[in-house]
Amino acid sequence: MIILDEVEQKIANSIKALKEAAGSHSPSIFTLEEELPDLDVRVDACFLSNPYATDLFLKYLKKELVDTGKLRDVLEFYPSQNDVIASAISAAINVEKDKIFVGNGAIEVIQAVMHNFVENKVVVNIPTFSSYYEFVKPDTEVLFYPLQKDNDYMLDPDDYIAFVKDENPDSVVIINPNNPNGGYLKHSQLRKILEQLRQVKNIIIDESFIHFAFESEAMKLESATEFTKEFSNVIVIKSMSKDFGIAGIRAGYGVMSNLKVSELLGNGYLWNSSGLSEYFFRLYSKKEFLSDYEDVRKKYIVEAHEFFALLSDIPEIKVYPSMANFALIELLDGSSSEDFVSKMLIKYGVYTRTGSDKIGLDGEFVRIASRTKSENEIIIKAIQNIFN
Amino acid sequence: MIILDEVEQKIANSIKALKEAAGSHSPSIFTLEEELPDLDVRVDACFLSNPYATDLFLKYLKKELVDTGKLRDVLEFYPSQNDVIASAISAAINVEKDKIFVGNGAIEVIQAVMHNFVENKVVVNIPTFSSYYEFVKPDTEVLFYPLQKDNDYMLDPDDYIAFVKDENPDSVVIINPNNPNGGYLKHSQLRKILEQLRQVKNIIIDESFIHFAFESEAMKLESATEFTKEFSNVIVIKSMSKDFGIAGIRAGYGVMSNLKVSELLGNGYLWNSSGLSEYFFRLYSKKEFLSDYEDVRKKYIVEAHEFFALLSDIPEIKVYPSMANFALIELLDGSSSEDFVSKMLIKYGVYTRTGSDKIGLDGEFVRIASRTKSENEIIIKAIQNIFN
Repeated sequence: MIILDEVEQKIANSIKALKEAAGSHSPSIFTLEEELPDLDVRVDACFLSNPYATDLFLKYLKKELVDTGKLRDVLEFYPSQNDVIASAISAAINVEKDKIFVGNGAIEVIQAVMHNFVENKVVVNIPTFSSYYEFVKPDTEVLFYPLQKDNDYMLDPDDYIAFVKDENPDSVVIINPNNPNGGYLKHSQLRKILEQLRQVKNIIIDESFIHFAFESEAMKLESATEFTKEFSNVIVIKSMSKDFGIAGIRAGYGVMSNLKVSELLGNGYLWNSSGLSEYFFRLYSKKEFLSDYEDVRKKYIVEAHEFFALLSDIPEIKVYPSMANFALIELLDGSSSEDFVSKMLIKYGVYTRTGSDKIGLDGEFVRIASRTKSENEIIIKAIQNIFN
Repeated sequence: MIILDEVEQKIANSIKALKEAAGSHSPSIFTLEEELPDLDVRVDACFLSNPYATDLFLKYLKKELVDTGKLRDVLEFYPSQNDVIASAISAAINVEKDKIFVGNGAIEVIQAVMHNFVENKVVVNIPTFSSYYEFVKPDTEVLFYPLQKDNDYMLDPDDYIAFVKDENPDSVVIINPNNPNGGYLKHSQLRKILEQLRQVKNIIIDESFIHFAFESEAMKLESATEFTKEFSNVIVIKSMSKDFGIAGIRAGYGVMSNLKVSELLGNGYLWNSSGLSEYFFRLYSKKEFLSDYEDVRKKYIVEAHEFFALLSDIPEIKVYPSMANFALIELLDGSSSEDFVSKMLIKYGVYTRTGSDKIGLDGEFVRIASRTKSENEIIIKAIQNIFN
């Protein structure tokens, strides 16, 4: 069992205080290093993004904006409006542009949907990403649908359909793959749910981690966006922060009925993309970039699953099945997740995320992101050491 | 009088169609050049920003982010939350940080205020920036207070106070200096209005152009933010796009009661700043940068007023008094504003903004931004030629 010595306990208390100040999200690595300068953070395994994709984006940015001097235009002038950027996205995802709402990160799309379309009652699966219950309007009832531990926190479609039919909400939220466990609903399972829940006004499917999921050896991307053609109640929300490694740019979008898009743009969301997010979405519509991206997406997926396999060999933890770029692990030896996180950070410089504040997790849980291959090796060694 | 030949009329019709497609905002110079490749745009005098400030910001960005490689961090990682960035702004403007709401551009602050605090009735002065009446909720009544042409579209405080007292709205909007005419209310006049309108729940003061206004030879900045300490109903909205020349970054903020800030942050606005806007606001809190900025602010103001004086010498136009970085001109020789804009663009490559879509302007009006000294010379020569 992990036990902190006196010095570690003191630092751990400071980390805990920072975590409490940060609310339902982890304090950033910058805040940590600023407030606790003695910490030597080597790996940020809280951070759920593909570092190889960041490398790729930076390569394009350097070549096309920095070296040419065009960066000035991107910073000086007003970016294009929503419908112009939607055209670029439309080319990339094969959906009509008037069904695409461009957001300042997926979080703006979440906020827009929760504030404008969710009405009296929304079903949110737990454990989950907290904004889906924190951003509801004061008069909306949030009903939690608990994912079952004995089913590895995977969603059981039949049970879920029965629950929703029984509760009759106007909106439901499905994150696929789910955060924080990485549980994945196959395309066929999602279709079944959509066919059974036509009466629900808004079926919100958050695909922020879908680029890391696959159903076949070819690792083909299976997005729910195509369901928006058949089911007008589907709203797909997509962050670009994780798969493209560009959280600082704030780029995301939603795919929904053209009526919903018109309603949102009718009295707001002017100039809500930045010059850099517009640049990113223009890249996103280009074949050359997407082809390069496919290489780094697959490379990262392969390494993530190698990482999950190595984690699974450590007897003191249980690794939950994941189709995302992170693994939810449960500590089986009686250690607390907070002691684990503190020890990993203080002694090994590896920053991981405790699950102790996640509603719906029953036990001692930690979420660990897959990073580069060499960083993953550091993480594995640290966990092995921590239990020895 | 300006008359277009056949070729010019054809291009003018295309420009008009683009303008109609762009709604209540001008089509960007990029859209123009994309759709009308024969145009050779030399000066964008629609664009209301200080180009010397853009130069300054780029100098810092190159030194601190590009040359050091730190640009990667700014693009890869999640930016800080609202309250962290508010701390930086707080240091720059001497207001407590819990009264500062950071926006993805001022436009997000406008939207947040109109959707969350404006209730049944809002008084908006015309002519004005259209978002203040376009972004109201469907059940809010917009009442226009017409600025008088025979008072040069300047606001008369006594008349305004009487109008508002009579109409008893819950909210009023004052843009100072006003867009599109540059009319300016002195600090003492604003104070008088605030003292008389304590019963109005929200007094929204948009100061997006305040850095260009002055009341003394020292050109000291007179912001209404300090009024928020005395009058809890004041909401100051500030864009950084114009004065700092960084529209592509999307940076703005609002200063309002801490209760209003808490209400906004209570169910939204997570990660609504980008890495670059966070970087900008951190610069904004630094003395060295602000001192450099003061130089380019004053240089630009001096040149703008030299430009306005040269415009005033042209007999075919009337220049309205402006304390902003643009001038509203009225065509006195019977020319239409659309023909003026088309001719200036097609024949001289100078892009200006027609006032023909601005509610509350009575006559043929064009808004012209002050640019660099050499660009201003091009604009002046073009207007002189157009009338000869």
